[in-house]
Amino acid sequence: MHPRFLAGVAAVALLAGGSALADPLPSWNDTGPKQSIIAFVESVTDPTSEAYVPEEDRIATFDNDGTLWTEQPVYFQGLYALDVLQEKAKVDPDILTTDALKAGAKGDVGGILATGMDGLLEVINVSHSGLTVEEFQADALDWLTNYTHPTTKKPYVDMVYQPMLELLSYLRDEGFTTYIVSGGGIDFIRAFSEDAYGIPPWQVVGTEGNTAFEVVDGLPMLTKNGGVTFIDDKEGKPVGIARHIGRKPIFAAGNSDGDFAMLQYTTSGAGPSYGLLVHHTDAAREFAYDREGHIGTLNRGLDEGPGLGWTIVDMAQDWAKVFPGE
Amino acid sequence: MHPRFLAGVAAVALLAGGSALADPLPSWNDTGPKQSIIAFVESVTDPTSEAYVPEEDRIATFDNDGTLWTEQPVYFQGLYALDVLQEKAKVDPDILTTDALKAGAKGDVGGILATGMDGLLEVINVSHSGLTVEEFQADALDWLTNYTHPTTKKPYVDMVYQPMLELLSYLRDEGFTTYIVSGGGIDFIRAFSEDAYGIPPWQVVGTEGNTAFEVVDGLPMLTKNGGVTFIDDKEGKPVGIARHIGRKPIFAAGNSDGDFAMLQYTTSGAGPSYGLLVHHTDAAREFAYDREGHIGTLNRGLDEGPGLGWTIVDMAQDWAKVFPGE
Repeated sequence: MHPRFLAGVAAVALLAGGSALADPLPSWNDTGPKQSIIAFVESVTDPTSEAYVPEEDRIATFDNDGTLWTEQPVYFQGLYALDVLQEKAKVDPDILTTDALKAGAKGDVGGILATGMDGLLEVINVSHSGLTVEEFQADALDWLTNYTHPTTKKPYVDMVYQPMLELLSYLRDEGFTTYIVSGGGIDFIRAFSEDAYGIPPWQVVGTEGNTAFEVVDGLPMLTKNGGVTFIDDKEGKPVGIARHIGRKPIFAAGNSDGDFAMLQYTTSGAGPSYGLLVHHTDAAREFAYDREGHIGTLNRGLDEGPGLGWTIVDMAQDWAKVFPGE
Repeated sequence: MHPRFLAGVAAVALLAGGSALADPLPSWNDTGPKQSIIAFVESVTDPTSEAYVPEEDRIATFDNDGTLWTEQPVYFQGLYALDVLQEKAKVDPDILTTDALKAGAKGDVGGILATGMDGLLEVINVSHSGLTVEEFQADALDWLTNYTHPTTKKPYVDMVYQPMLELLSYLRDEGFTTYIVSGGGIDFIRAFSEDAYGIPPWQVVGTEGNTAFEVVDGLPMLTKNGGVTFIDDKEGKPVGIARHIGRKPIFAAGNSDGDFAMLQYTTSGAGPSYGLLVHHTDAAREFAYDREGHIGTLNRGLDEGPGLGWTIVDMAQDWAKVFPGE
């Protein structure tokens, strides 16, 4: 790089750093949530503050589905699994051994959800086994990039929330380490988390399946064998945090009661902490749902969250923009 | 910090960086292993080299017992478990339900090992359950700091290998991320890994037990419930790496056939990689063992490792020093 250009970069950086006008969260309206997030970050990063937290303890954990990207009409991983299942069933119809799998092979999302979350897990399980982790991730990324959402017609990878991308960047700029802690599959999320969120694979915690190490024709490989070994949801989220991170976060964000335990854990005990729930109130720009349904149900969080000091983000009111590029 | 002091620091840093005499591995003799480690690190960090590896891919994984610290006469975690078991059995002798547990309560290590590795796991399991992760780690750290090794009489935390401490620091200075990938318990290792090795909890992969999230009297806590959910040994090591890191290492170090699969995985495929096995040849300064016994058995590694391009470190010949401060 030419020294004169470098000097220019440094000058811009100084200006940005020195200006009180620089807005780290431009896609957030200037309402309560934005103000309290910035106040929290400024207090824990100010060495003269009583609330100061050293960098190695600035751990922030984010749910994925419904918190960082859309989860309607059903988790995108479920939609991907459905497409894979339909292709597999064409070759071998004998794999359709349950009602959920039969519904899945017809593309009948309602029929799967009628069998409960276990049905969805079955579809995912059958779809996501019998291939290496690398093969699975390449296929998933291809699908996420080239297939489009049924209502918005955007590629799935573009259905991330712009305000949350800004929040992730802001926290990292302020010395936080940002993790995903999701009920979704760890291998699936890692297929796109680095590109989409700037979050590398080792900062993704998720539901885990049987993975086997084998040497095939002299070539070592990791194969997805089917079967779930760990469910990173509800009370599993603090357990996933304990296993993968080993330190309590000081910031946690979610959108459903599957995140309640994670926020409860994060905001417990002495020391500063911040709990955030995204409330889907925006039928016009995204989806509106909370207390009912199979996906992203939010009851306890709405009832108890405010009393626990958590911030409820009203998507319609608090976000100036939902998706990037709008 | 006073500016003049800062300038002094910068000058020293410049001198060290610019000097070909700076030795990153002073406790290694100038034999093959040291030379090949430095040659490898220099090649993967040189942007003009064909072997150049960007920082985010410079992942190094280290076994713990017998690779970073001593594992004789038995894994230190086993010795700790024995002490805890003896205390527990005084209060409640009914917990001694198996031959291994009865041998353990008498402090009979040979009797436990005679029942195989399962017996040792039983002792560890009974000892390490019924308390929170925090309580367990505080107790383990206290034991490691205040109890001494039966033959060397050093505190256990001081039985780390000085040459390996230097190797960890050297790799980190060169942009590597250093992980522990151990058959030992993840919570046990995290109790001391940051202080002893500079490795934070989120870079420790190990054997995992049942952990439950509960809210007791309004206080959220993580409790160790007994029972093993994942064994991070042998073929489990690449699986543990896949779960926790999600990217193939380019450097792996171990000392037993429990590390074979990890080195095989690391050194497979295209691209530069380095596999290292510590061979315990030094009865005078540490212990001498390899092909026989219950702990750290090394057969395949000695037979096949050299043919796979792995470096075998002869502790007696290649290390100028074993423990810190000698």
